[in-house]
Formats: sequence, structure tokens, C-alpha cells
Amino acid sequence: MEIKEDFMPSSKNQPGKEFPQVNSQGYARFRVEAPDAESVNVSLGLGGKGGTDLTKNAEGVWTGTTAGPMDEGFHYYHLTIDGGVFNDPGAENYYGSTRWESGIEIPAHDQGFYELKNVPHGNVQQILFPSPSTNTSRTAFVYTPPGYGVEASNRYPVLYLQHGWGEDETAWSNQGHANLIMDNLIADGKVEPFIIVMTYGMTNEVKFGGLRDFKVDAFQAVLVDELVPYVDKNFRTISTRESRAMAGLSMGGMETHAITLNKPDVFSRYALLSGGTYNPEELKNSTKPALIFISAGSKENPDRVINAVNALKDAGYNAVSYVSEGTAHEFQTWRRSLFELAPILFSK
Amino acid sequence: MEIKEDFMPSSKNQPGKEFPQVNSQGYARFRVEAPDAESVNVSLGLGGKGGTDLTKNAEGVWTGTTAGPMDEGFHYYHLTIDGGVFNDPGAENYYGSTRWESGIEIPAHDQGFYELKNVPHGNVQQILFPSPSTNTSRTAFVYTPPGYGVEASNRYPVLYLQHGWGEDETAWSNQGHANLIMDNLIADGKVEPFIIVMTYGMTNEVKFGGLRDFKVDAFQAVLVDELVPYVDKNFRTISTRESRAMAGLSMGGMETHAITLNKPDVFSRYALLSGGTYNPEELKNSTKPALIFISAGSKENPDRVINAVNALKDAGYNAVSYVSEGTAHEFQTWRRSLFELAPILFSK
Repeated sequence: MEIKEDFMPSSKNQPGKEFPQVNSQGYARFRVEAPDAESVNVSLGLGGKGGTDLTKNAEGVWTGTTAGPMDEGFHYYHLTIDGGVFNDPGAENYYGSTRWESGIEIPAHDQGFYELKNVPHGNVQQILFPSPSTNTSRTAFVYTPPGYGVEASNRYPVLYLQHGWGEDETAWSNQGHANLIMDNLIADGKVEPFIIVMTYGMTNEVKFGGLRDFKVDAFQAVLVDELVPYVDKNFRTISTRESRAMAGLSMGGMETHAITLNKPDVFSRYALLSGGTYNPEELKNSTKPALIFISAGSKENPDRVINAVNALKDAGYNAVSYVSEGTAHEFQTWRRSLFELAPILFSK
Repeated sequence: MEIKEDFMPSSKNQPGKEFPQVNSQGYARFRVEAPDAESVNVSLGLGGKGGTDLTKNAEGVWTGTTAGPMDEGFHYYHLTIDGGVFNDPGAENYYGSTRWESGIEIPAHDQGFYELKNVPHGNVQQILFPSPSTNTSRTAFVYTPPGYGVEASNRYPVLYLQHGWGEDETAWSNQGHANLIMDNLIADGKVEPFIIVMTYGMTNEVKFGGLRDFKVDAFQAVLVDELVPYVDKNFRTISTRESRAMAGLSMGGMETHAITLNKPDVFSRYALLSGGTYNPEELKNSTKPALIFISAGSKENPDRVINAVNALKDAGYNAVSYVSEGTAHEFQTWRRSLFELAPILFSK
């Protein structure tokens, strides 16, 4: 494919930084100043190809372009300079892989749903809630919809929304734009406003290879016994099972799966985004959920999602599947999943 | 001075990262993996000494310790690797010098006032407010005191608090811990709760050498005509001049100076933290301020602060000076300044 020379700075660059850049085909181009370095590699490239090696030009500046177009949406990446791992000084940082990584945004054909628009905006507030079980104050972010501060008597349903392994409570706002997705849906009249609560899932306590050993108990105590009561006390929630949902991406989906099955009287609406499935057998002895939503990218395991939802429907559950076309185990899949989930989450 | 081998990871490190470290004397020690690099320098060191050069050990790891103790409190820094500027992969990032820089924290003898304690916590919320004058939605952070969400009828005074050049609206929370300073003061009964609003002062539009050319008009329009009305509508403020204050550090102090003199009917309480002074002459034709607070670090220009406040007192103004002992033009000066300012800000 001929590379179009219409490169523009990535929307995830630090203020005023010209690089990295992306073009209309989805190629990414990098530029790093390190005149005395021996080698500079960018971890981002076509899947499994070892990233993109940069080459040094006559001015001592390292440049390079990905070998092909990247998937639409957000990608984490880093530089390897002379054998050490560093971030790209041009890019903003996002917490993933248990470190603050560089981020880049490949323009997507459907990006309007998570763009900052001239519509009423909700707020994202950092709360510090007491956690006796972990003997500290813990952080969560709470999205309150537009007008929350003005309409002093309205009460709202609540979605507890979890990040994936390697990420933290900042992911759904910073990488996912959950707040902008909600603002735009509300402005379009497509969703009744609800509150979203995002906290750290303690997922990074386990090494990625050892997910099977992860015990959900400690996080479940924080979420169900500490955070939910704090939110119900300090925000104008509808504090019923019917109006409380839990969702998570990847390992946050595993947590959602485990906690909703353990605590079916706390949550009534469950969503797994690239994070496993439910089967009718494991649900049959618990209070029936009002909604089960299961999604994945088309480059993941979409058949597994669709088969699971069909089995749930056959068993009489209100189950919905969603497959994000052309995306993998990355945030574009999860942005789209939230966009599909939100309008139906508390609709019946 | 003999270096004590009681180094511990800096409290500003990324989760789980062992380096950088600091010891009880204020020395900082660095460790960077870049086995094939030719040179690694840390910008942090004793003032004006060109930072700290690291040396490569037999395992190819670069290590080094500052030549002496650093001032107490927060410092920005970065690495220079083979001629390029990068962040330390061990440290969290903070927006300063118009880029996300690495940050390190030297323990301070008085650090209790900005520590996270087991007290009721306020929230810091990101708002997106409409700004017709700049044709976008702009970001601000709003600190609401503990119990704001529960005490649904209380109304609060408001402090508009500005960052310095090179920084942005994240600085007062991330580097300054303004929220924790307030939480601790409120828990100790030393301050009546108030709201703090922090937004981007548009200070980075000007090159640092050209501060004299900075025009405050564009920011003044955003602050006074757009943000203040939005906050008064969407938060439970006391929307009077008497209950509205403005403060800023460094270039944010210059903005505070200009805007309070231009708009004396909007703000009644003024504070300049390492950011210039007022003199009686320039105040005499405007509505009299209820309080003027001027501060600096003892390593800056403390005499200028004290002389200015004495002149203001002589002219009949309620003026207060504060000098932070042993600190320079850095955040420890401004944390302490806020701690001194908050109890008296709205007290009479």
C-alpha cells in the first residue's frame, strides 16, 4: 500500500508536540531525538512483528513508520533505547502493563461517539474512600452526569466499571473516554443518565501468567462492603440491586463474573467486555440477573461470545452480545462496548 | 557529609518501582537500565551543578547519587540519555516545564500536613466547562470539601487557585496535594471548609523568557466571564465578592495580581505565592481587598515579600506575609503557603 503523506500529530500527544503522527490510513510515524544512541525501537507495529525499528538521519534524529496500518483506536507503546525501556517524550502517558506507558490514537471511522463535543458535560471526580479491610483510603473515580450539581433531588442508577490487568482506576476515563461517551449519548437522548464508579481492581497483585491463582475475595470486600456503601451515602444513587450494575474489561470481566455470582443480591446487571462468559448452569441457583451483556473484538473470540449469549437466551435470560468489527483486545473494543451497553443497561 | 545508607523508594514512584530512592538526609539515588547507552545524566542535583551523572556498573545498570542533600519536598527532573531527554521509568510523571516530567519527593520534617491520613476526604472533580471565548470546552478541577455530597444545603466560599508557567490545571492536586492539605486542616478544625477551583492559566502560550509580553486578557475572559459563572451555577457556592478569592504561584501570581486589580468587584481576597507583590499605590483606586497574602521561599526573595506587606499594612490593608524556611521556587514553598493561607483566607 502506498503511504499517504497526510500525517498529523496524534490526538494523544503532549501539548504542542508534533510527534508521534498518524495518517488517514492508520500508519504511525515516530521521531525521537537521541543523537548518541545506538538503537531506538518502538514497541508498536504490526502484531507480533517486534515493533518498529527507527533509523538515524543525518541530523541525529531517529525516525520510522509502522510497516502497515494499525487498528483504529488507542494503543499503548514504549521505546527501547540502547536496551532500556522509556516513554516517547512526545506522547501522553497512560497506565497499562503495570507502568505508565506512552499512548497513541489511530483515528477511527466512528470516533464521533467519544469525541469532546459542545454538549453539556458530566464531571469525573476522584474520591478517597475509607477501606478498613486494606487499612487505607482508596481511590475511585466517579462520573456524575451533566446537571448532577444543579438537579439537587434526582437520583441515579450506578454502574461499577472495572479496568483490565496492568491498568488502574484511571483507564476508563483516560483511555476509554467513558465520560465523553456518556455525555454524547445523553445529549443525543439515547440513554437515561446514570453514575459510573471506577476503582482499582487490585488485579496487578498477580503476575499476568498466573491469572488462575487470582483470588477475588480481597477486592470483593473493598468493592461490595466498602465502596458501594460509601457511594450510596455520598452520591444521589438509587441504592437497590435493580439499579446497580457491574461491568469489566478483560481481567475486570473475570472480576465481574466472580463477584456478580458471589453477590447476586448486590448487582442485577452484568457485563463482560473481552472478559469471559456466563453459562446458564452457574446462574441457575442465584437471583436472576436483569441483563447479561457479553462483548469482544472481532479479532478476539467472537464466536465464543455469540455462542454463550445464545445459550443464555435459550435458558430464558435477557442476554445481549456485541462484536466490535476489526478490533482486538484493546480499548477501541471496550469504548464501543460501553457505547452499545449504556443505552440498554438500565432500560428494563 | 557521610551518606547514610537508609535509602527508600521515593513516595512519587510508580507502583512497585524501587528507584529512584531518597535517604533521611535528602540525598537522591537513581538506577536506570540502558545497557548499551553511552551516557546517562539526571537533571536533578545541587543547584546549577549540571545535575548528576550516572555511571554504568558491571551489569550494565546506570546508578548514581546526588552530590549533596536536596531541598525538602517535590522536585521535577528528567534523564538525558545519549543526548535525548526522557523520563525515569521508575517515577510518576507531573506536568511542568510544558512537558510531563519525572517527579521525586524528598521527605520533609513537616510533611504531615499534606500526607494522606485516615480523615474524611473531599473530592477533586474534573469539570468540562463551555468556553465561547476560546470556542471549546475547557478543563478545570474542583475540590469540594468532605461531606459536600451529603450536606445538600451548605454553601461554601471559593478559592480560584492558579499553577505556574510550564504547569497546568493538574499541578495543585498532583504536586501540591491541595486536597490533602485542606482535608487535614478541616479534620483538625483549623479551617472552615471552602471550595478550590483550579484551571489552566494559558501561561504556556508564552515563552519563559518573554513573560513581560504576556497578555492576561484571554485568560481573564475565561476565568471571570466563563468559569466563575459556571462554578456558581453548578456548585453550592456563596457567589459574592466577599466569599471569592484568587491565588496563584509564580506566573499564576502574576495572573492573580493583574486580574484582581482589573476585577476588584469579583474577588476580595488575593494571594501571591512566589509571584510578585502589590503596592498601596496600585490598589488605592479600587474596591478595598479583605485580605492580601504574599509569600515566598527563604531561598527566593523573602525581604521583598516582607517589605511589600509592611508597606501595605502601613497603608491600612489587611496584609499577611509568609516565608517558607529553607525552600526555593518549588512546590514545598507553595504547599506551605496554602497551609498558612487557608485558615485565614475567609476568616474575616
